[in-house]
Amino acid sequence: MKSQRAELVADAAIDLLADRGMRGLTHRAVDEAAGLPPGSTSNLARTRSALLELTLARLTQLESAAFAPILGPPGPDVVEALAEMTAQAFWVQLTVGRRRTIARYELAFEATRRPELRTIYDRAGERFRGLAVAILSAAGSSDPVRHGRQFVAFGEGVMFDAVIGAGVEPTLDDLRLGIREILRGMLGRETP
Amino acid sequence: MKSQRAELVADAAIDLLADRGMRGLTHRAVDEAAGLPPGSTSNLARTRSALLELTLARLTQLESAAFAPILGPPGPDVVEALAEMTAQAFWVQLTVGRRRTIARYELAFEATRRPELRTIYDRAGERFRGLAVAILSAAGSSDPVRHGRQFVAFGEGVMFDAVIGAGVEPTLDDLRLGIREILRGMLGRETP
Repeated sequence: MKSQRAELVADAAIDLLADRGMRGLTHRAVDEAAGLPPGSTSNLARTRSALLELTLARLTQLESAAFAPILGPPGPDVVEALAEMTAQAFWVQLTVGRRRTIARYELAFEATRRPELRTIYDRAGERFRGLAVAILSAAGSSDPVRHGRQFVAFGEGVMFDAVIGAGVEPTLDDLRLGIREILRGMLGRETP
Repeated sequence: MKSQRAELVADAAIDLLADRGMRGLTHRAVDEAAGLPPGSTSNLARTRSALLELTLARLTQLESAAFAPILGPPGPDVVEALAEMTAQAFWVQLTVGRRRTIARYELAFEATRRPELRTIYDRAGERFRGLAVAILSAAGSSDPVRHGRQFVAFGEGVMFDAVIGAGVEPTLDDLRLGIREILRGMLGRETP
């Protein structure tokens, strides 16, 4: 983010999206939620598109931080390390990062009807997918592009079903077991 | 559906949701899209809630039909049969049934802020999950409730990433391979 104020505004916008949905996100509501003087949000992001783009940029920054441990140096068993770190990252998205997850789905939906937002959303998504492809390739996948996408889709489905789809909440252990299973299935070998 | 007219109205509502989103769905727009005289939709479903519920009921009916082959008698290899039938059903949801899939995501989102719709949405989802649990149990799963949910979440994630999330479109073969892999991972044995 360019400034602390931009972060403050984007964080307030994420909370508004989570609590009130796309219709609840207005420049004025962001000023109020951020505790800033009227007009502050407009000064930073004049149009609605600019506000959505600022919000998505901040969200991507926060989600990248949540998934950063996965980038750490792999231990002797890369698959087990990947399973544990991914389970922890998904768990964060469903607990302390839950409102961020809801806000991201709001933006994904809005992107289906707003091409500029689509471009930014997809660019962020490609970064996550590229990361998954690289890790699965290092773990010995025979089809890393397909497997990387499939792994991201699995996480997306688990999170969607928890926060939007059906209130089906996995425990941290459910996440660990499920991720090990999908890795075992893709890599064709046993994981602990 | 109670009547042919109710089906006609609900089908038009599904198309409107897919094409114009939640904001594009109005009683008047449904009348027009269905080619019915003004007031017809209001006669069938007076409130907005009633219209959303009618639409979701029709959607559930159509999606149940799409997944019905999975209920058929399993062949000698239940896992391979399940993989093939599920891949075909997901493929239908992403191709000829694509607008229905988009409409369902619109309703899932709306349900997060509309308790009556939430109840109906979740009841339909429980039916699908219950079916997955029963099938995976029959296929020898050691943890069928968790596996059934996980299997549904996987499909949800693949479909979400294709139509809303990131434009990542699997081929029918990608679906077949991916479903075999997740089944292999959950059931702990090789599939063809």
